Amino acid sequence: MLPSPGALQPATVASALLTDFYELAMLQAYHRTGMNETAVFEFFPRELPARRNFLLAAGLAQVVEYLTTLQFTPADLAWLESTGRFEQPFLQALAALRFTGDVDALPEGTVCFGNEPILRITAPLREAQLVETRLMNLLHFQTVIASKAARCVLAARGKPLIDFGLRRSHGSEAGLLSARASYLAGFAGTATAQAGALFDIPTFGTMAHSFIQAHDDETQAFAAFARSQPRHAALLIDTYDTEAAAQKVVELARRLRAESIPITAVRLDSGDLADHARKVRHILDEGGAKDITIFASGNLDELRVEALLASGAPIDAFGIGTRMNVAADAPFLDCAYKLVEYAGRGRRKRSEGKATWPGRKQVFRRFDAAGKMASDTVTLADRHEPGTPLLVPVLRAGRLVESLPSLDAARALARNQLEALPLRLKSLQSATPPYPVTIAPALHELAAEVDRSVMPVRE
Amino acid sequence: MLPSPGALQPATVASALLTDFYELAMLQAYHRTGMNETAVFEFFPRELPARRNFLLAAGLAQVVEYLTTLQFTPADLAWLESTGRFEQPFLQALAALRFTGDVDALPEGTVCFGNEPILRITAPLREAQLVETRLMNLLHFQTVIASKAARCVLAARGKPLIDFGLRRSHGSEAGLLSARASYLAGFAGTATAQAGALFDIPTFGTMAHSFIQAHDDETQAFAAFARSQPRHAALLIDTYDTEAAAQKVVELARRLRAESIPITAVRLDSGDLADHARKVRHILDEGGAKDITIFASGNLDELRVEALLASGAPIDAFGIGTRMNVAADAPFLDCAYKLVEYAGRGRRKRSEGKATWPGRKQVFRRFDAAGKMASDTVTLADRHEPGTPLLVPVLRAGRLVESLPSLDAARALARNQLEALPLRLKSLQSATPPYPVTIAPALHELAAEVDRSVMPVRE
Repeated sequence: MLPSPGALQPATVASALLTDFYELAMLQAYHRTGMNETAVFEFFPRELPARRNFLLAAGLAQVVEYLTTLQFTPADLAWLESTGRFEQPFLQALAALRFTGDVDALPEGTVCFGNEPILRITAPLREAQLVETRLMNLLHFQTVIASKAARCVLAARGKPLIDFGLRRSHGSEAGLLSARASYLAGFAGTATAQAGALFDIPTFGTMAHSFIQAHDDETQAFAAFARSQPRHAALLIDTYDTEAAAQKVVELARRLRAESIPITAVRLDSGDLADHARKVRHILDEGGAKDITIFASGNLDELRVEALLASGAPIDAFGIGTRMNVAADAPFLDCAYKLVEYAGRGRRKRSEGKATWPGRKQVFRRFDAAGKMASDTVTLADRHEPGTPLLVPVLRAGRLVESLPSLDAARALARNQLEALPLRLKSLQSATPPYPVTIAPALHELAAEVDRSVMPVRE
Repeated sequence: MLPSPGALQPATVASALLTDFYELAMLQAYHRTGMNETAVFEFFPRELPARRNFLLAAGLAQVVEYLTTLQFTPADLAWLESTGRFEQPFLQALAALRFTGDVDALPEGTVCFGNEPILRITAPLREAQLVETRLMNLLHFQTVIASKAARCVLAARGKPLIDFGLRRSHGSEAGLLSARASYLAGFAGTATAQAGALFDIPTFGTMAHSFIQAHDDETQAFAAFARSQPRHAALLIDTYDTEAAAQKVVELARRLRAESIPITAVRLDSGDLADHARKVRHILDEGGAKDITIFASGNLDELRVEALLASGAPIDAFGIGTRMNVAADAPFLDCAYKLVEYAGRGRRKRSEGKATWPGRKQVFRRFDAAGKMASDTVTLADRHEPGTPLLVPVLRAGRLVESLPSLDAARALARNQLEALPLRLKSLQSATPPYPVTIAPALHELAAEVDRSVMPVRE
């Protein structure tokens, strides 16, 4: 009776047209002039947003799915032709285009920093160029969300967090992938049913205020819900008067014990959550309902969770919605996908304020005696530095080198990575000093060489 | 050779499982107790974000598509069964569930304000509850983006704006729907190819820095691109040295004139855009290339566009990316979908700081003698106030009352609405005083009546 995964709606809209028009304009120019040597592009964050001491890399699984299934359908090609901007020989070449290149990347769940490549593409120029937009769209978003969610996890000190934010996520894929990225970062699960179905993430759900409002009597609403979800009765108690509702829960719990239906939790969603939690905890405990836990939600983020727990509020778990799902304080990263080598020669751009480092890169990470991250060095991929190299082979000639880690394995890696953070980086405020990332002399040397050879400095 | 629209990848992932798990938990409880009287829910923003003087309603077309196609597939139902939380009779009822209710809404492109319903659902309780999450997910996001994009349009004083932001949009649907919402708000087009294919939005595209870098010579890169896109040759000139590149463009334009290939524009993407634009304009004009326009991009938003134009920078058009596509300064709205009536009786919640107005509502808008918006009154739907009622019938018994306006018609409405804004609301800063929205006495009276009857105030 269980469906095959393929029978469910796809998580991602993977049309080959989901790209910037300019990728196709450039590809036609390359096609006309015959340019298609091996190109190397790297995707990397530049400076981290304020109050981000680290990022958590995420989205690789969706990038691999995209690259290994990429192709233009006849309908896609017909639309391109209808624009009047593309020639038949080029459209025929597009019809045959598949991704045949190599990918090296940070495994999902790896902690990373500014100027460190998260992913490297090595492929014929046209393929490597075409995939820019969607690759960034996937890696950027999940890295934004996993990094935000990791801060929530650090703030929660082991208390379970549930993703509540589909309704204010930026569309369907944002809702599904923010459920995935937050679970990867250590959330316990999501309220989004389809994310449970697609990614096998634990799903959670209580009730809305409308459920209480639709009944003429609050206790009657509680009882109807508990009987309908006999092992998952979490009751929302702030619709009218939170403490009065808590008292009703105590009385209902006694009655339902006769039916062997436990009330598992109450949810608070408004007002002074710490104050309500203390009063409700007292009412529940006095009423012999010590086993009913308190779940809090409502405009929460990592700063509010930290403050609630610091105040000693007896809250057992949190629903985190909008502010995590849109990464409200930092909804985007300064990041880029840049050509670093073409036809065997290093390349860089030197645009003001946006200059990039040329060459294929690797990141080496050193750990201290206690196993905490100590420093990173970014150097050329064929050099060695002390420490562990972080980018690993993912695709070779368009095929997986080995199966990607499962989402649960990526989640376990993320947990280990967060544990290995130096204490100052676990703070929700800016760490002083920030984590040290060194650009190796080899990169400085290559940059100078590229500048001399490719584009002489103007007098 | 043109594809049928259905042959393209869908714009939205419309699985019935794209909802919060709690909707399904509540539905099962309603199913067990037989509750399914007519419910009325309204979606409305509460307070507007800082520096938003108005919102632009958007997303109705996707909501209608969702409601009129909603159904659970066998795979969806099998997954629900696999969770162990749902009974067979309920799953059978879900299999038969379709949306059979009424929708009244603001037409897309309507200017609106806090506490004004954007959409009202009148339907059997279970249907009206189930659709909450996805309905909010669609209306919230497009309204966020259209409202941000409208600010950019006001700042640009008639100069064309192009959506550049797919790469840092929050996933695929966010990229596609932000292209749609920004076009609706008055953008001239988008860089996202699939948005062009799905929504018939004009698409634009130039080249990336990598195109220049991959060539050994910048002029050679410019020439190759121009010959490949002979009527759309917009050249990116900031990869190495902007003014030196502008000089190359002047010389190339002379040579290409012999081939009847015009260079249409140059693009600036870094540094002091105003300063570069002035220098480049001078170089182009001196070189006899007065017809080449200057296009600017790079971390732009409405504030930067306003400042650039105020400085007199000779920029003809702008590419607006990330900061518009994620609505960086206000990536979410305080908004809700709330039960306002059930089984013929008004309902409200009174949670602290989140109390709502009961009853089916209508918004009446008055205009001054010059045709500018003067004030709004929110009252019960069966009352009348001076002015024009804003919510219109969209669905009756699950079917369209009449075809929805086309995207271009919605865009024309938005243009008219922006023209009808009082001058102070067109400012990018907070308007003083804000636009007046009055809650009619009828709503105060109903709220008091609901409070007395449904839930007596605790002593």
